[in-house]
Amino acid sequence: MTRFELLKELTYVNQTKIVLLVIDGLGGLPREPGGLTELEAAHTPNMDALAAKSICGLLDPITPGITPGSGPSHLALFGYDPLRYEIGRGVLEALGIGFPLEKDDLAARGNFCTVDENGLVTDRRAGRIPTSLNEKLCEELAQIELPGVKIFIRPVKEYRFMLVFRGKGLSEKLSETDPQRVGLAPLPVEPLAPEAEETARLVNTLVEKAKEILASHHPANMVLLRGFSKDPCLPKMQEVYKLKPAAIATYPMYRGVAKLVGMDLLDTGDKFTDEISTLESHWQEYDFFYVHVKKTDSYGEDGNFDARVALIEEIDQHIPRILALEPDVFIITGDHSTPSVLRSHSWHPVPVLLYSRYVRPDGLDRFGERACAQGSIGRMPAVNLMTMALAYALRLNKYGA
Amino acid sequence: MTRFELLKELTYVNQTKIVLLVIDGLGGLPREPGGLTELEAAHTPNMDALAAKSICGLLDPITPGITPGSGPSHLALFGYDPLRYEIGRGVLEALGIGFPLEKDDLAARGNFCTVDENGLVTDRRAGRIPTSLNEKLCEELAQIELPGVKIFIRPVKEYRFMLVFRGKGLSEKLSETDPQRVGLAPLPVEPLAPEAEETARLVNTLVEKAKEILASHHPANMVLLRGFSKDPCLPKMQEVYKLKPAAIATYPMYRGVAKLVGMDLLDTGDKFTDEISTLESHWQEYDFFYVHVKKTDSYGEDGNFDARVALIEEIDQHIPRILALEPDVFIITGDHSTPSVLRSHSWHPVPVLLYSRYVRPDGLDRFGERACAQGSIGRMPAVNLMTMALAYALRLNKYGA
Repeated sequence: MTRFELLKELTYVNQTKIVLLVIDGLGGLPREPGGLTELEAAHTPNMDALAAKSICGLLDPITPGITPGSGPSHLALFGYDPLRYEIGRGVLEALGIGFPLEKDDLAARGNFCTVDENGLVTDRRAGRIPTSLNEKLCEELAQIELPGVKIFIRPVKEYRFMLVFRGKGLSEKLSETDPQRVGLAPLPVEPLAPEAEETARLVNTLVEKAKEILASHHPANMVLLRGFSKDPCLPKMQEVYKLKPAAIATYPMYRGVAKLVGMDLLDTGDKFTDEISTLESHWQEYDFFYVHVKKTDSYGEDGNFDARVALIEEIDQHIPRILALEPDVFIITGDHSTPSVLRSHSWHPVPVLLYSRYVRPDGLDRFGERACAQGSIGRMPAVNLMTMALAYALRLNKYGA
Repeated sequence: MTRFELLKELTYVNQTKIVLLVIDGLGGLPREPGGLTELEAAHTPNMDALAAKSICGLLDPITPGITPGSGPSHLALFGYDPLRYEIGRGVLEALGIGFPLEKDDLAARGNFCTVDENGLVTDRRAGRIPTSLNEKLCEELAQIELPGVKIFIRPVKEYRFMLVFRGKGLSEKLSETDPQRVGLAPLPVEPLAPEAEETARLVNTLVEKAKEILASHHPANMVLLRGFSKDPCLPKMQEVYKLKPAAIATYPMYRGVAKLVGMDLLDTGDKFTDEISTLESHWQEYDFFYVHVKKTDSYGEDGNFDARVALIEEIDQHIPRILALEPDVFIITGDHSTPSVLRSHSWHPVPVLLYSRYVRPDGLDRFGERACAQGSIGRMPAVNLMTMALAYALRLNKYGA
């Protein structure tokens, strides 16, 4: 029996509420030998006090040693086996900007990029052009027409846009055009299966037309396409967990994955205090809230240890507002680690805290990676977390007689 | 997606080096209630200091409660699911003595044994005859000829020899002749599948001829055969991990399993100091070194607590030589436990220490079973260890976007 088959059988509706606070890239590393991680260095009296009353542990997003992208790591937190359910980047981009993707649509993630007079890529992100310019360029590209398909090109952020083809018989089995390094020419799309030949021709024609239109728009004078994908039709949290779930997140990617598992996307502001205000104002409407903080990850990728510490401290100040809502289950964790010393996502396990009136409190004196290593959750795959959340929210029946 | 499919996709070549030190049967038990295990009793200042800077934990070779043989426990350490990949004992013996096994060869492990006038086994190991006598007996047995196959009989050590049949259509689906207890007669080989009938007949004929030849050689007057097997054609570490691996081990069995997963076998001496000298002199040539110490296991099987303690202390003295090479990842563990109070392999989880500059050090004050139980690796299947080694050696790309 799969986890979902089991949960579909065992879950029932209750009045309890669950808050899953995901501090993106939360896990860190000491800046210097013998030092503290970002989370350990941060002054977090509220999270520390909560840790004492909670159960704690370390989560492996996928399996020990595997560094996840944001898609699989979030699927795991939402209880979806990340090695079984895969979502293409194109689909995530489309859902993230609220594009009404239809079942047979083919989506891709686009970058505006810069090519030189020989057609070689000199900047894969076109100097990170502002979103406003991106919007104008997408309008220009909207004039492209191809036989038999509708084309949607929408700005995402800075140099990134979404491309969607709508038509019959489109295949996602396509290679990417991004050469992944500067100094190389964009690659033509190749069909990865016989049934994708016609789709590959369509995409290549679109890229040629886009190149003509963008020729005069240096530095955004070319496009790169990747992550060709269609809606993977994941089971929804409503069906599997019998929850009414909502997402409070600002970045498209995370809104995208949340929508894919059935969450309502709530409008919110850029700061954590705005997100908590959104949580407060929608508290009566839902019973599961996914609250996402992005910048802890971004600062990690920038190598900015101090900014990570400062943001964690800012988050900590608002924890009492969440507790004041009296959630039945309150989880604080990350989707993966993004240690500033590595400037990238990493494989290190992620600290987690689960608070409920039904825990046997670990009594740890703080919330940190090494404190959590002493917690009673132990070290486990992140995909187990949702089942635990449902259990502590008294939403699971007994298995077997 | 299987672990190997995932790793084939994610691994890349780097300049980093990994040392996996396997102290055979490392895990132990207290000699008396309230006492210390062999590892805890040993004075190991170097390993203790290293543990403080490392992450530690307990590994289950197979799954909790399962006592492994050396084959499966080593496969697990090398990252091969030991319940999926099986190697017959015969194949291990053949590879261990450097016999050039071919793809369709059928190998078996042989024992010289003693039978009485009624043909009942009185000593399954023929009084542990010296290897020199074994060699002479194997020469005598070499006169056996059977139609349609070539036969290779080679001494291994003491009472043990290797038997290989080379021919067409040989099957490994055969029962064993070793009755496992004295007082019983050797069993005839039975085919375990219809296609093995002819092979069973061949083997039984060989056993009859061997019995005739050995009749006058008491105490080595009969043979027992087991572990009929063919090359399982395991994926090689080079393909799966993109590593250039070498094995530093003295016992045939361990050299055999190392070769099976693609390692080069380095010539070395009997003592740990010799093995480390070998490591030093080949340091530039490889990026993965498996270093094996056998006698900790042998002393455990002998029930010799003190000899285990002394050998662990001897190993500890050479740890600084390994550290002086500055491996990027240095792991110390065992393949299983061999507590001297049990005089056999056991199911107890095995202490492990992983050192790298990218760990969040656990800060434990010593390397021992109960200290490791407090470490952040937690308790996990040994098969995860290689993935972690690759991660800490910065040899894995991100999974998913």
